[in-house]
Amino acid sequence: MAEALPLVLLAEQFARLPGIGMKTAQRLSYFVMSMSDEDVREFADAIINAHEKVGLCSVCQNLTDKEVCPICDDVRRDHSIICVVDGPKDVSAFERTKEYNGVYHVLHGLISPIDNITPDSLKIKELLQRIQQGGVEEVIMATNPTVEGEATAMYISRLLRPLGVKVTRLAFGLPVGANLEYADEVTLYKALENRNEM
Amino acid sequence: MAEALPLVLLAEQFARLPGIGMKTAQRLSYFVMSMSDEDVREFADAIINAHEKVGLCSVCQNLTDKEVCPICDDVRRDHSIICVVDGPKDVSAFERTKEYNGVYHVLHGLISPIDNITPDSLKIKELLQRIQQGGVEEVIMATNPTVEGEATAMYISRLLRPLGVKVTRLAFGLPVGANLEYADEVTLYKALENRNEM
Repeated sequence: MAEALPLVLLAEQFARLPGIGMKTAQRLSYFVMSMSDEDVREFADAIINAHEKVGLCSVCQNLTDKEVCPICDDVRRDHSIICVVDGPKDVSAFERTKEYNGVYHVLHGLISPIDNITPDSLKIKELLQRIQQGGVEEVIMATNPTVEGEATAMYISRLLRPLGVKVTRLAFGLPVGANLEYADEVTLYKALENRNEM
Repeated sequence: MAEALPLVLLAEQFARLPGIGMKTAQRLSYFVMSMSDEDVREFADAIINAHEKVGLCSVCQNLTDKEVCPICDDVRRDHSIICVVDGPKDVSAFERTKEYNGVYHVLHGLISPIDNITPDSLKIKELLQRIQQGGVEEVIMATNPTVEGEATAMYISRLLRPLGVKVTRLAFGLPVGANLEYADEVTLYKALENRNEM
């Protein structure tokens, strides 16, 4: 073997990250070799630090380094609307729109029997508890428009209905800026079905 | 800002790696959150370790955790042929062919005035010293077939000619398995020019 062992071990570590293949992992580990001592130390510390200091918000289950995340802690936001999402990156996506002023609930996954992800392994109990504490008027199911996302939205909406809370689902339709020609049939059908008066 | 600071800092670290954009960096930092304490520690240690323990081989300048790398240290290899490459990943590429039995010399870059990479910043002096010590019969210039690779190969071959060593260049031509139709003109011209008798 031509490679130095510590380099091989580092490449293996990089390759465990999602979307990083062995070739990219090798390239990244070579890059680490070219970094300064200080930069390397900073990189390693950032990994340890993020993992140690970041936990789940006790209210919405999003990642945070506080007991309660800044969104749940913000009195200017509308706490009567909860947007239920798969993961923290979906919260970031909604926040980027700068249009949503409610709060969130992060499930940390979607129901998927094949992958052995059952409702019990998601943060559904925590959502029910939040709603039972009162003050919630609407729950927006904002899981992905995939089989798992749909199943999870259906499952949770059935649990919520007896609690007397309004449950809504994100609209399906054509992505803005898209070309009709390239839309798949299901999306096109949904766009037709959900058409609005002009 | 919705994101926890340690997570943002980690994403920024990932985004400094080559080929990793801000979106991928965020995804990777979320993944780190889902790792076990032990795995996170192992990852951070691998980074520090590789950077600390891996240096340059005193002979060929390839990355190694020894004073002399396993290839230069291997008496079964032909030390009279030196294959000159841009970086360590090129050594790995040649080793994967399992067909080359000579040794290497790693330049750690290619001459590129625009990027302020001059001959002095490459391991060219070290190559000349190796050849002056004697025993070298052939130097294969195996830099990439790019402007910088060609310029570097030309520059070094001119330095080597007075030393009475044979200097060769990798063959240009069609990639094996490729389709003529998709070959660019220069490659096709080179393939024609360097045609071999069957």
